[in-house]
Amino acid sequence: MTDPAELNALTASLAVEDLRDAWRLLDAAERIEGFRLLGREDAQEFFGALPSAEQLQLIEQSSATERRHLLRMLAPDDAADLLQELPDEQRQPLLGLYDDVTRREVASLLAYREDVAGGLMNPRFARVRPDMTVEEAILYLRRQANEGLELYTYAYVLDKEQRLLGVVSFRDLFRGKATAAMRDVMKTDVVRVHEEMDQEAVGATFAEHDLVALPVVDAAGRMKGVVTVDDIVDVVQEEATEDIHKIGGSVALDAPYLEVGLVGMLKKRLGWLLVLFFAQMLTVVAMSYFQVRIDQLSLLSLFVPLILSSGGNSGSQASTLVIRAMSLGELRPSDWKRVFLNELATGLTMGLVLGVIGFTRVVAIWPGNEEQFANFSWQLAGAILVSVVGVVLWGTLIGSMLPILLRRFGLDPASASAPLVATLSDVTGIVVYFSAVSWFLSHVLPPVA
Amino acid sequence: MTDPAELNALTASLAVEDLRDAWRLLDAAERIEGFRLLGREDAQEFFGALPSAEQLQLIEQSSATERRHLLRMLAPDDAADLLQELPDEQRQPLLGLYDDVTRREVASLLAYREDVAGGLMNPRFARVRPDMTVEEAILYLRRQANEGLELYTYAYVLDKEQRLLGVVSFRDLFRGKATAAMRDVMKTDVVRVHEEMDQEAVGATFAEHDLVALPVVDAAGRMKGVVTVDDIVDVVQEEATEDIHKIGGSVALDAPYLEVGLVGMLKKRLGWLLVLFFAQMLTVVAMSYFQVRIDQLSLLSLFVPLILSSGGNSGSQASTLVIRAMSLGELRPSDWKRVFLNELATGLTMGLVLGVIGFTRVVAIWPGNEEQFANFSWQLAGAILVSVVGVVLWGTLIGSMLPILLRRFGLDPASASAPLVATLSDVTGIVVYFSAVSWFLSHVLPPVA
Repeated sequence: MTDPAELNALTASLAVEDLRDAWRLLDAAERIEGFRLLGREDAQEFFGALPSAEQLQLIEQSSATERRHLLRMLAPDDAADLLQELPDEQRQPLLGLYDDVTRREVASLLAYREDVAGGLMNPRFARVRPDMTVEEAILYLRRQANEGLELYTYAYVLDKEQRLLGVVSFRDLFRGKATAAMRDVMKTDVVRVHEEMDQEAVGATFAEHDLVALPVVDAAGRMKGVVTVDDIVDVVQEEATEDIHKIGGSVALDAPYLEVGLVGMLKKRLGWLLVLFFAQMLTVVAMSYFQVRIDQLSLLSLFVPLILSSGGNSGSQASTLVIRAMSLGELRPSDWKRVFLNELATGLTMGLVLGVIGFTRVVAIWPGNEEQFANFSWQLAGAILVSVVGVVLWGTLIGSMLPILLRRFGLDPASASAPLVATLSDVTGIVVYFSAVSWFLSHVLPPVA
Repeated sequence: MTDPAELNALTASLAVEDLRDAWRLLDAAERIEGFRLLGREDAQEFFGALPSAEQLQLIEQSSATERRHLLRMLAPDDAADLLQELPDEQRQPLLGLYDDVTRREVASLLAYREDVAGGLMNPRFARVRPDMTVEEAILYLRRQANEGLELYTYAYVLDKEQRLLGVVSFRDLFRGKATAAMRDVMKTDVVRVHEEMDQEAVGATFAEHDLVALPVVDAAGRMKGVVTVDDIVDVVQEEATEDIHKIGGSVALDAPYLEVGLVGMLKKRLGWLLVLFFAQMLTVVAMSYFQVRIDQLSLLSLFVPLILSSGGNSGSQASTLVIRAMSLGELRPSDWKRVFLNELATGLTMGLVLGVIGFTRVVAIWPGNEEQFANFSWQLAGAILVSVVGVVLWGTLIGSMLPILLRRFGLDPASASAPLVATLSDVTGIVVYFSAVSWFLSHVLPPVA
């Protein structure tokens, strides 16, 4: 069976793999050239899987006829995602390329925010009526498939007002008696989401019920579309990316790293860096308050970076663990007491271990070097032990409580970034360290007026 | 139609929602009690959606008969995930509860690592033969559905040796001519994954091709099972959680935050904290090297935390952005030059902005306080400008290059955690700052012998 069609399919399939591999290295003109070489089916699959920004790029480079074809390759929900990125005056001409029915579908999707159930859903889904028999339903679905409908695992049973009555899986359909009515085969206890539900909550509903598709309904219970789990993969990736970027102390980039130019990067990164820099200026003030101690004994300043970093590190651990647990729904603000006790125990233990190491280091390794130092090495070691314990404990506590506080005030817990927690713990760290030093070394350091 | 069955369904559906809400607060004994109240279908759905650890907990609390029912509620791939968590001697008795066919299926899945395609796949899928007609295939699928097969969007066409020849979507099946043979209806250009492919790569394949299901084949091209996109949602969440935990400077927790006890927490967190603490001891050495400068002018020590944190913050931004871009496949190690140039430009600009603010702060706000300071405020401001630029630039460069280097050496880029990058930039920061100070203030500070 090596007929020309198959041979053709073979070259086409080679072309699509080559194009995929080279894609990132091609400029806009080369991309459209390569894309034109693809067979119809490959082109559809390839185009459908591109991120919206790259789909737009191809559309911009295309002729008017190609544009129409490209747009029709997309399911209405994907088309809406793409058009959402355009200003209105560029959106209208593209919408004009659709037939009336599709244009209405796409336009109604554009009315939703991109990050709610309505913005994720596909308005085309398999629908049957409650009085249809299994046989009629299969025939009817066959007709819908012929008209281009993609069939997922379920068909939905709607009444005349489009209200969702129940769901039938293809499996139920296939194994039901040919004469049974949909209303007797269907499952009525259907998990559904409201059209305005936030995408994160939609994702959580999928996870909770382990589903592959969820019907979207309006306030009156009318079914508007279906969100499928493959859209949720993108949502989950997006939400995780946002969290990670924020944890690192940036505003979330909304494009792939390499596509964000210098100006874009600065917009996302400089803001937080400035805030943190201004906050860190408080450390200068705090240090200047203890400058007289450093004048008395410059040795004291050597330990400042060590002490501060141990607070920042333990705080960054605690905040990322708590932020992630909240994003996954494992933790709610009402759990704060358990978190607090957890972190109290963990922070105290970790602080003690690190503190003892710091203590040993001062007592055992160092006294040899400085004559004068022998007089108070035990006291200095004690001050370091106490401040490491205090700073590590403080770091874990603000690291774990700050995300919870942010959520309680309706803010994003992920804003409790590692750098922010470190900065907050630094100022306190300075005060803790020098207070401990003043107390332990009071016999060597004359009191400050 | 308020018959007892429906009423029953209603109470059962109330019970399942109540149970879901209360679940987190219940202990093991209460959980099994609540679970026993559920109707068969609710129980199956509820049990199937629980994480493996909680499924195990219910199984442990159950009677022998219940155990058999519980295990049979799970698809073979989910059963394998669950049994994977048990030591061999506990695994065998549970395996013994299965009928022969299922036991063989589950046992063969247990041979795979949990994080490869084989460990994710469901060995049960809709299969048809190439010479079947559309009509025969539908009948045959109906029979498979009757035997309990879940039908996803595709049926796979296998030859007698179980080699994958092609794929037919239900849509194709529904719209094909009743007498057309599978071999003429099927799509032959099937994206497939090897049974040993890592789950992260499987996820990337889903994303690249925008699919809902992927066939898994062995080296000989024999089809072993299907990975569906709903399994990928879990993979994506898991991988993101791992990255986030590592970015925060912990080893990835492999259980929900609240279920990790003190010992577990210490195991995951103390290790890195110790490594970082030892690394940070280098800052004591670096500082002691410049102690004489602090003796000459204690004022210099006040700026140390500010300078160091600006490097740590910019580094933590850069490393999290690069780590995430690599996890999403947007960046490969071969892109290092572009990343380097990006970060060079970004780091330099951000450093200059922060540096100028630091400069202004020293010159404009401060000189009033200290008489002696008026002689060299411009020079000190210059030293601070230069060191902030240097430290921020250095932070962004190691933050961005370290993840790439780790990947190139086969390690996990996410190990370039925010605290690690901060620690690495701290030592350098001290050297940069005091070198700048020595140079700019050479007229005030006598050279060190």
